[in-house]
Amino acid sequence: MDIEPRKVAFLGLGVMGGPMAGHLASAGHKVIGYNRTAAKSAKWRENLAQRGVDVSTAATPVEAVADCDVVLACLGNDDDVRSVLLGEAGALEAMKRGATLVDHTTVSPALARELAEAASAHGVMFVDAPVSGGQAGAQNGKLAIMCGGSDDAMAAATPVMEAYAARIVHVGDAGAGQACKAVNQVCIAGVLAGLSEGVRLAQATGVDTDKVLEAISGGAAQSWQMENRWPTMVKGEFDFGFAIDWMRKDLAIAMAEGKEVGISLPVTALVDQFYAQVQAQGGARQDTSALIRHLPEVSR
Amino acid sequence: MDIEPRKVAFLGLGVMGGPMAGHLASAGHKVIGYNRTAAKSAKWRENLAQRGVDVSTAATPVEAVADCDVVLACLGNDDDVRSVLLGEAGALEAMKRGATLVDHTTVSPALARELAEAASAHGVMFVDAPVSGGQAGAQNGKLAIMCGGSDDAMAAATPVMEAYAARIVHVGDAGAGQACKAVNQVCIAGVLAGLSEGVRLAQATGVDTDKVLEAISGGAAQSWQMENRWPTMVKGEFDFGFAIDWMRKDLAIAMAEGKEVGISLPVTALVDQFYAQVQAQGGARQDTSALIRHLPEVSR
Amino acid sequence: MDIEPRKVAFLGLGVMGGPMAGHLASAGHKVIGYNRTAAKSAKWRENLAQRGVDVSTAATPVEAVADCDVVLACLGNDDDVRSVLLGEAGALEAMKRGATLVDHTTVSPALARELAEAASAHGVMFVDAPVSGGQAGAQNGKLAIMCGGSDDAMAAATPVMEAYAARIVHVGDAGAGQACKAVNQVCIAGVLAGLSEGVRLAQATGVDTDKVLEAISGGAAQSWQMENRWPTMVKGEFDFGFAIDWMRKDLAIAMAEGKEVGISLPVTALVDQFYAQVQAQGGARQDTSALIRHLPEVSR
Amino acid sequence: MDIEPRKVAFLGLGVMGGPMAGHLASAGHKVIGYNRTAAKSAKWRENLAQRGVDVSTAATPVEAVADCDVVLACLGNDDDVRSVLLGEAGALEAMKRGATLVDHTTVSPALARELAEAASAHGVMFVDAPVSGGQAGAQNGKLAIMCGGSDDAMAAATPVMEAYAARIVHVGDAGAGQACKAVNQVCIAGVLAGLSEGVRLAQATGVDTDKVLEAISGGAAQSWQMENRWPTMVKGEFDFGFAIDWMRKDLAIAMAEGKEVGISLPVTALVDQFYAQVQAQGGARQDTSALIRHLPEVSR
Repeated sequence: MDIEPRKVAFLGLGVMGGPMAGHLASAGHKVIGYNRTAAKSAKWRENLAQRGVDVSTAATPVEAVADCDVVLACLGNDDDVRSVLLGEAGALEAMKRGATLVDHTTVSPALARELAEAASAHGVMFVDAPVSGGQAGAQNGKLAIMCGGSDDAMAAATPVMEAYAARIVHVGDAGAGQACKAVNQVCIAGVLAGLSEGVRLAQATGVDTDKVLEAISGGAAQSWQMENRWPTMVKGEFDFGFAIDWMRKDLAIAMAEGKEVGISLPVTALVDQFYAQVQAQGGARQDTSALIRHLPEVSR
Repeated sequence: MDIEPRKVAFLGLGVMGGPMAGHLASAGHKVIGYNRTAAKSAKWRENLAQRGVDVSTAATPVEAVADCDVVLACLGNDDDVRSVLLGEAGALEAMKRGATLVDHTTVSPALARELAEAASAHGVMFVDAPVSGGQAGAQNGKLAIMCGGSDDAMAAATPVMEAYAARIVHVGDAGAGQACKAVNQVCIAGVLAGLSEGVRLAQATGVDTDKVLEAISGGAAQSWQMENRWPTMVKGEFDFGFAIDWMRKDLAIAMAEGKEVGISLPVTALVDQFYAQVQAQGGARQDTSALIRHLPEVSR
Repeated sequence: MDIEPRKVAFLGLGVMGGPMAGHLASAGHKVIGYNRTAAKSAKWRENLAQRGVDVSTAATPVEAVADCDVVLACLGNDDDVRSVLLGEAGALEAMKRGATLVDHTTVSPALARELAEAASAHGVMFVDAPVSGGQAGAQNGKLAIMCGGSDDAMAAATPVMEAYAARIVHVGDAGAGQACKAVNQVCIAGVLAGLSEGVRLAQATGVDTDKVLEAISGGAAQSWQMENRWPTMVKGEFDFGFAIDWMRKDLAIAMAEGKEVGISLPVTALVDQFYAQVQAQGGARQDTSALIRHLPEVSR
Repeated sequence: MDIEPRKVAFLGLGVMGGPMAGHLASAGHKVIGYNRTAAKSAKWRENLAQRGVDVSTAATPVEAVADCDVVLACLGNDDDVRSVLLGEAGALEAMKRGATLVDHTTVSPALARELAEAASAHGVMFVDAPVSGGQAGAQNGKLAIMCGGSDDAMAAATPVMEAYAARIVHVGDAGAGQACKAVNQVCIAGVLAGLSEGVRLAQATGVDTDKVLEAISGGAAQSWQMENRWPTMVKGEFDFGFAIDWMRKDLAIAMAEGKEVGISLPVTALVDQFYAQVQAQGGARQDTSALIRHLPEVSR
């Protein structure tokens, strides 16, 4: 890919941000990374150095973003984003005018709009850009990115984000990316609820679950989750994927947004409570498909 | 397709059975059709005759099946199946020994096992073979068929069913086809619950729903229903597809089976009750995606 | 109580019917009892004889009801009622014209109406009269009876039912008693759902559950279940009361009736599925308050 | 009642606090009132003056609480409480050492514990004391008060609270009052869910709903809500009582507490979402029994 190299900062080098920032460097951008835990930044730099990729690190967000064309963040939750991006010691305050801020964290649409306003007041463009595709997508550089922001902001952010994206969709104005992500998670909650009950029914009736999958995965019941999670749900394997703790964070955002816009999300709310049971059973760090654990195991 | 022509009877010439039986004739089998309403049989024969396909009809199940190698049925519910296939005036009693009976109706696994036993006592092989793919699948001859029965029964039924099948899966013994279909419907119920809430959330937040679909339909939230029903759900179009009345019949079978095997299907039960609201709103004959109607429309 | 002694038959001498029939005899009626298991009838007669109460038994429903003014039944489910009361060997056929048939079994309103019609065709009056108050109410003669039937039928049945009633309410025409009982069970399902979650929340927050009960049982959250079941739910004691197996039978009637009349019962359906989990955990014979067991126990 | 008159401040003179503070003055305490909207304070003072009850008002929380033995608050939500009680311009900072602070607002147990710690650091005793009994209870002085705090704090607060209490229960340490209130609301949610479905079932089956109430309100389905709300639910009257907006605020506290302590509250979460539908239908200010509106009206 022939890109125009940019000076970019990446804030948050966790399981998602780390590989994403690495892809930026591999693509030819000049990348400076920041992480709250400095040891993590150092580790990230070393790992890339071993692969011949050169990056630098900064001790604070302010130090990281100075002079950058594009600043990208992938943090934990609303509080983390506020703390790293906003306020006097926040990244935004230190960004140069005309630069672009991209937030990949899944946060509330309300915070996304607040960030957009703060950015605008500072002469900075903003894109809320939550991703889907999980850790695997981050590592393979094949994330789907749902974006909210102005056309100008998108024009500035897109060539950079392409370093790790399989798909970039400009959904609408500021907050639209986050709203889209909330919709995504609500849809997944329903799919997994049906799948959990379907797998248990298959197990309890004693049919060959592989044959059932073969029979139904090509039709109207098909879903990505069915194709990718049915076999592991049958086996009770959940130590991978997107953690329930994170899913509940996302569903809380969706339900808060639902409350804000005046709609009802009954099955989402129910699935969220079923996840509470799975957390109590020790599944907090397991993949979202561990939802099935709220239904007792079937012995035959 | 080079087939070995068989003498077959098809019982039940409705929106599913009619086209299925037509495909059998087009494929070269000698088909005799039966329908409770004789006018429907006549219409079916005329339609095929206009297309140059020759079939015959019978006034009773007993008359239809005499001498047939394979008898196939696609009826309404458990009661219909009992009335047409079992009893003294039923088809089974009149079938020749060594023939094969295939039931495409979605009924309870318990009834499927009862039919298998009755068939066996009569020297007839039996396959429970519910389908998915809907009216469109029947018309295009692209149904997915989930089968329960012995290997011998499958060997006899498969070459005939291939006339209208995109996929035939031998799931297990008698009843396994019906169990598989129940699993299929349970999975769909969950998918549609999530999709309904997702569409409403997208609408209420005011984002471009086409863009949302573009952004999320390639990832972990993807489903056949999302790809095929999102646009019509957004527009509130439901006058097509698989009727809610039939879906509730199928979910009742799934829940009864769940009770039988001792498991819990909470979201299935909830969706079933939400469908009751849609029926009360006049949606009984609308596609299952009309589930979204239980959530108030969003005005912006 | 000064009563007019009647010749009455009581069909079904289980944990409910046994004591009810005993009260009839104690009140001065001439009682003949019938039970499918003859040993149970004999045991019932002996127990009463030891207390100086004289009753007789019959080997068949037909034998029991001959010549009786009032025939009362308290059986298991719809099938039992059909088998004992209807058909050629059923009680109704053998009842004298002008007599009154009272069914205390909880069955579907539809069956109640069918019984009323069959009775009418035979010149017999009919009251559907399901009870609440449980085994304790039957033993103490303090049942609440919800009745459907004509004024004449009520006039004939009431003086007899008073032998074991704390309250008799004539709700409406045939089937109204059963409809009322269905409403009763639906209300209980909701109360217990709230109570289960309330108890678990109290336990998990570590507050003194006795104090909580004292604080809230006098206000808007009060219920009979709270006053009578909170302490046992806290302790996890459930081996008494009204069995979950019977409750699910009753909820199935309520949901079938809801389907019939075109309404939605989402929480009822959900509670019913939660009961399935408790059955799977071994709670089938435990009191309905064992619903709480579907929520994991809290350890502090 | 022979009381020891105290100098007390009451912060928040709304539909609950206004009458409560009036009862304090009528009981002989020297009361100074504060409300964010000064006009409301003035109106409150005038109304009492017309009834010959003398009170004074203050322009700020700080001015109100100076020199008071007991300070009581009844505000809106967590944010209001923080703003009025905590911080540099908050009441706590201005209270004299050894005084007692009582918060009647329904807030999170976490905030109650935070207030207790802040009070302790300031040498002030604290009681979290949410109430039940609604506007009517406040007006009649018949509230049930659920308290968390030390024995000393209770000893100081109780004689004052008695001016408007029917029942005061010391549930446990700081936060226990709020936890108890959360349990109360969860129980109500379940009761109303069952009642809503029960009323709709009664209406749809066409039975006399007065007769049904008479038949079932004395038994195991009985609840305060059934006795007090059944007739108005039947008639569709909801413009009174405890508003759904406030109920959802309380249920959010309960669910957040449930998340905190690691339990699942599925029916609570579902009812909360059903309330969202009723809000969308215009019921935000209606009584909690308007939950029934999420179920379509039945026409017969």
